[in-house]
This record gives sequence, structure tokens and C-alpha cells, in this order.
Amino acid sequence: MVTTRTTRADVVAAAGRMFADKGYHGTSMRDIGRAVGLLGSSLYAHIDSKEDLLVEVVDEGARLFLESARRAREAGGDSRSRLRSLIVGHIDVVLDHLDVVRTYLNEARMLDPTHRARVVAARDSYESIFRDVLGQGVAEGAFRDDLDPKVASIMVLSVLNTVERWYHPDGYLGRDELVAEIWRFVGDGLS
Amino acid sequence: MVTTRTTRADVVAAAGRMFADKGYHGTSMRDIGRAVGLLGSSLYAHIDSKEDLLVEVVDEGARLFLESARRAREAGGDSRSRLRSLIVGHIDVVLDHLDVVRTYLNEARMLDPTHRARVVAARDSYESIFRDVLGQGVAEGAFRDDLDPKVASIMVLSVLNTVERWYHPDGYLGRDELVAEIWRFVGDGLS
Repeated sequence: MVTTRTTRADVVAAAGRMFADKGYHGTSMRDIGRAVGLLGSSLYAHIDSKEDLLVEVVDEGARLFLESARRAREAGGDSRSRLRSLIVGHIDVVLDHLDVVRTYLNEARMLDPTHRARVVAARDSYESIFRDVLGQGVAEGAFRDDLDPKVASIMVLSVLNTVERWYHPDGYLGRDELVAEIWRFVGDGLS
Repeated sequence: MVTTRTTRADVVAAAGRMFADKGYHGTSMRDIGRAVGLLGSSLYAHIDSKEDLLVEVVDEGARLFLESARRAREAGGDSRSRLRSLIVGHIDVVLDHLDVVRTYLNEARMLDPTHRARVVAARDSYESIFRDVLGQGVAEGAFRDDLDPKVASIMVLSVLNTVERWYHPDGYLGRDELVAEIWRFVGDGLS
């Protein structure tokens, strides 16, 4: 049982790496099998289809972001500190689960309509948590009063979601400095 | 001659639409041929391969952004107004050439290493124009003096490049309002 479970998780992890790197349509089941050392029939004992793997990786991405937002919400504080917690949590998810996040952000559009709708709903929930904090910040006077919480939440998330495209953990900017730069850019832009 | 040219442009435009929508690997030459009403051999009279089409669409994206930046630079003014011109020009390129931009931003990573390097170079040139304006703004005192022009240019471009993912021209936010919201978010974040 333990071996079976480990292997399935390995297959999902390998799929996430390859989807992130070569795209969903650029990855074949054969590529994934080769990455985990499983031949066709052994691979299909664990997984029905490539789309199943995409669903699993994307669901994992949605789950990671929503859990992070829930933790940030529980941390409490005023709207500025809650927004900062959301940002720190988001960056942690991106940098700690880069393959899952890349697949979630870039390949979810390849899902069938039913699963894609689930992803859109998960993103809407996540975005609404940012929107609520921004709306409360406007009400509290922490952010400027002409701020549109909907548009602002999208722009904050634009900055956060693009981090996977340019940030290199071994570059000149450490994780704390990355968060500080983002916070300065975003926090000042809202005030 | 005229017919041949028109048809080739049609093929490239159709490829851009399909790459933007289904991804490079999710699009077949047969799909593209069907979209322009050309059968296999007639299609290959115009185009050698699917990768050639990707190269053409991506090169077009790079050209559009660099021309827009050149025009913004020629418009002159102080650093704040030059940054605003860059932002307006960028949004115009995104909204007027959505398929090309989506392919340029999301599918260029599917190119072979040589062509990908050309795209990276074009993006670096474009980003450096933003970086220079931001650096001048810091020197002139128009932006805050602890601003890192490199990181700030990436964040501004993060906001601009994500527009293709969420903005709907028929939504509640018109193009001018979109630019105004972005400018408020970005301009205030830098000050």
C-alpha cells in the first residue's frame, strides 16, 4: 500500500514538473512514465489519463492558495497587516511549489469545461479574499478612498502571479527582499 | 503575388488565434489549414512548419511592443509622463493585438533555444526602456529614492502583461478607465 501511494504521488509530481516546463500538450504520458521509470501498463495502473494528472496538479494548486489565504485570514490584524500576510503566504506557495503553481496558472486553461469551471471558481474565491481585505482597508481609511477593490485585487495578484516567470531564488534578491519590494510597490500603490 | 501574400498573412493570423486559444502544442497544422480553408499541400506551399508560424507570430509581438516603446520615447516629457506614455502604448498593443500578444507572452517558451534567445533579448530591450525611465524618475526625484528600477520595471510589466488574462473590452471598465486604474496603481506605487 505504501509503495503504491508513493508511486502515485511520484507520478503526479513528475507530471507537474513536465507540464510546468513543456506545457500540458507538450508532455506525453510516455514522457511522464519515463521520468518515474514506469512502462505503459504500470503507469496506467495508477492513472487513467493525462488529463487526470492535470486535474490533480491544478486542484493541488487551488488548494495550496486557498489554505494559505485561510491562514492569513486567521492571523487577524488590521487590513494592511492582513493584506501583507496574504502576500507573504502567496509568495511562499509560489516559491515552495513552483511546478504546481506554474501548471495551475498556465495550463489550467487546457482542462475540459467542467474542470476549468472549478478552477475559475477557486480563483474567484481566492481573489474575493483579497478583494474583501482591500474593501475593508478602504472602509478603515487604510487605502485611498477612490480605490476599486475589484480592480486593485486583480493588480495585486498580477504582480504576485508573475513572480514565477522572473524570480530566481539564487539571484541577487532574497525571498524576504522580494516580499519587501512587492509590499512597497503594492502597499504604496493602494495608499 | 498579392493573393499569395494575403494568404500567407491569413495563415499567420489564424495560427496566432489558435496558439493564443489552445496553445502551440494544442494546435495542429491541420487545425490551422482548416481555419483558412487550405488543404495540406496548399498550406505547405506558404509555410514550412508549425514552428515557423510560431516564430512569425512571436516576432510580430516583439516588434509591436518595441515600436510602441520607441514612439513613447519620442513623445518626450518628464519621466512620469514618459512612463505614462509607455503604459498607454503597452495597453494599446495588448488590446489591439490580443492573439499575437497572448502567443508572445505564453507560447514563446515553446520555441527552440535559438529563437527563444531572440525573444529573451527583445524582452530585455523592452524592459530596459521601462527601467531607464524609472531610473531617470528616481534621479529627478519623481519616484521614491529607494526604488530599485530593475524590480520596479518587472512589477509594472507584471501588471501590464496580465491584462490579457482578465480584461474584457465589453466589461464595465472601458480602455481609458483601465489605463487610469493602472496608472493610479503603478504611479502611486512608485512615488
